[in-house]
Amino acid sequence: MPQAPTRTAVGIVGAGPAGLMLSQLLARAGIDSVVVDHRTRAEIQGTSRAGILEADNARLLTESGVGDRVLREGRPHDGIALRFGGESHRVDFRALVGESVWLYPQTDVFVDLADARARDGGDIRFGVSDTRVVDLTAEHPGILFTDADGVAREIRCDILVGADGSRGVCRSAVPEAARTHFFREYPYAWFGVLVDAPPSAPELVYTHSARGFALISQRTESVQRMYFQCDPDEDPAAWPDDRVWAELQERVRGTDGFTLKEGPVTDRSVLPFRSFVCEPMRYGNMLLAGDAAHTVPPTGAKGLNLALADVRLLAEALETALAKGDRGALDTYGPRALRRVWRAQHFSYWMTTMLHRTPGATDFDVRRQLGELAAVVDSAAGSTYLAEAYTGWSRSRPAPPRGHGAQEARL
Amino acid sequence: MPQAPTRTAVGIVGAGPAGLMLSQLLARAGIDSVVVDHRTRAEIQGTSRAGILEADNARLLTESGVGDRVLREGRPHDGIALRFGGESHRVDFRALVGESVWLYPQTDVFVDLADARARDGGDIRFGVSDTRVVDLTAEHPGILFTDADGVAREIRCDILVGADGSRGVCRSAVPEAARTHFFREYPYAWFGVLVDAPPSAPELVYTHSARGFALISQRTESVQRMYFQCDPDEDPAAWPDDRVWAELQERVRGTDGFTLKEGPVTDRSVLPFRSFVCEPMRYGNMLLAGDAAHTVPPTGAKGLNLALADVRLLAEALETALAKGDRGALDTYGPRALRRVWRAQHFSYWMTTMLHRTPGATDFDVRRQLGELAAVVDSAAGSTYLAEAYTGWSRSRPAPPRGHGAQEARL
Repeated sequence: MPQAPTRTAVGIVGAGPAGLMLSQLLARAGIDSVVVDHRTRAEIQGTSRAGILEADNARLLTESGVGDRVLREGRPHDGIALRFGGESHRVDFRALVGESVWLYPQTDVFVDLADARARDGGDIRFGVSDTRVVDLTAEHPGILFTDADGVAREIRCDILVGADGSRGVCRSAVPEAARTHFFREYPYAWFGVLVDAPPSAPELVYTHSARGFALISQRTESVQRMYFQCDPDEDPAAWPDDRVWAELQERVRGTDGFTLKEGPVTDRSVLPFRSFVCEPMRYGNMLLAGDAAHTVPPTGAKGLNLALADVRLLAEALETALAKGDRGALDTYGPRALRRVWRAQHFSYWMTTMLHRTPGATDFDVRRQLGELAAVVDSAAGSTYLAEAYTGWSRSRPAPPRGHGAQEARL
Repeated sequence: MPQAPTRTAVGIVGAGPAGLMLSQLLARAGIDSVVVDHRTRAEIQGTSRAGILEADNARLLTESGVGDRVLREGRPHDGIALRFGGESHRVDFRALVGESVWLYPQTDVFVDLADARARDGGDIRFGVSDTRVVDLTAEHPGILFTDADGVAREIRCDILVGADGSRGVCRSAVPEAARTHFFREYPYAWFGVLVDAPPSAPELVYTHSARGFALISQRTESVQRMYFQCDPDEDPAAWPDDRVWAELQERVRGTDGFTLKEGPVTDRSVLPFRSFVCEPMRYGNMLLAGDAAHTVPPTGAKGLNLALADVRLLAEALETALAKGDRGALDTYGPRALRRVWRAQHFSYWMTTMLHRTPGATDFDVRRQLGELAAVVDSAAGSTYLAEAYTGWSRSRPAPPRGHGAQEARL
């Protein structure tokens, strides 16, 4: 026999970083929420994901009361290296835009958020099944699901938020005529490995090579994360350790003494590569956030960051709509979020196409990429433009009006 | 009966701006040259070509003694407009990089150079035929041709310069094994018109629209030059005035009150669209310059500017090699020139792909372009990066070393 519906202000589908952060921010504003996810906490925690947080998002963790573990265990990265023509060229974020990013894996963001919500008595339901969202245009849309104990449940809310990722139920529940999908496929993917080895560089090394892109990134003093461009249908099982290292060594080979340190490969997988945006980000009383509304290729490290940026705006809009009674605020969320989304889509596309080898590309295209990379690292403006985007546009300023000098424009 | 060979230090094939400017610079350094061209002076003068000169190239005209008509009749343009989403956004070159460009058509550059060479007694042979270049790896390579009076002629020189454009004889004379061609075709072209109308804007308007790219540029108070993206096999005869204006009006349509002023179309043509680089730029004692070695799509206004930049470096190298006897200088010319060439190739590609509609592009691609255009105009760094390239990198500076502030780096 079905239980009586649970009433809450905001029903959230998806207990990843976006859903949990939203729940956290709403709680601080005195707004109730319930979060459901079909995965168990252990499943979410066991997934290896992105590792770079924009400074604004690191601040969001500390300022929203989630905790300051990011500051103690995360590592500030003041730049990245662009490696091409066999040499690394540093892009110094701190010098260029006065900002850093944080190496702090998505798993840790999730753990911090899940712990904070548990500590503060947040209503988070992991491991549910048969989730459906209903009555999206009604006054009280609903989330129907079977809980972890096999009991059918119903949540009724004022606003429903779909933060359930790129293959979640929320976006699919919007009638096709009410949404437009924008997407781009890429003719390559990333082969990602976790390795037991010391770090080879203090910061991420984005590498252009004749054999294609490679990214040398870090996790801890003894575990590293690395990626190289591969075919979308590459089979991880066909890559024993020796072959992985031979491929990575070939891609980072150079003349500047850079040494890639090897060790046992403990995890290998092929990461999908896709650009996607769903517009609008609202349908009736349901709003979408994070991967449920958009996905980016991983090259710009923007996926998790966009999700948290959405949530910052969404919490504001919900507070205005629910606590202050101004429902018009709900209409401003999507357009505001999409402005950043499209900027990040471009940045991710730019980093991707500047660094990857496209099948069928001519030698001209490769030389042009090298011409672009040289232009970016040789120009303070080009490097700054990249640094602004990578660090999340927190300090970027509009172009100056006519008649003002460039110096003033930067202040 | 063949004439005795004419001896000169530098034999130049091609009397366009590159060949004539080189001859001018060499004369000022006391080095003899002879220039030949299969076209008559009137033919060259009658061709409508590019109209934007980088400031360094305007200075080159005045400082090399060619004349200061560029300063009197040319117009400094302190910026351009990027028009998208129905609104124009100004990129203010002078404010961003302290530099302008000059609206001064290539025809006028040619006239000034041809007049200067005639005034100073330069040996320029227009209207020759059957031009061949021979003995390129010998001590005295030769130019064989029939002069305008039908007499077979031979020039023997220390160094031969191929400045004879993209379909000239010089590059073709290099054995295929000794050159590498890099190229990229584009699935569109430009439809160019000359119109009798007042200017619609004070500066060039680069327009992104759902129907494709358009460029509103200027010539004089009563004659304007405009372009719009078209199929490569478009037939100019199929475009009566009404159709041209309807297409242009549709592409610049917007919400900011911009008005495109119409008038009779006096010239219409389809411009090819290709990226090409030949490496190396030297074979034996022959050096290539300008379009003979590389062509760019017209979007970045770099064709004429790259040719003149080549010639600045080439004159230096020839002076060191011939007047100072250091032949090693000839080896430095190509690599130095190619650094700018590839940067310009990238810039031209960037401007092209940011603004044109690629057949088969998805709606995602169009939104991404709009995201990029917004990012460029909203960021002082992005606008500066574009302005540096458009104005010719004359004031760009390397990225700062670690630890220096962005402000210092700009000084």
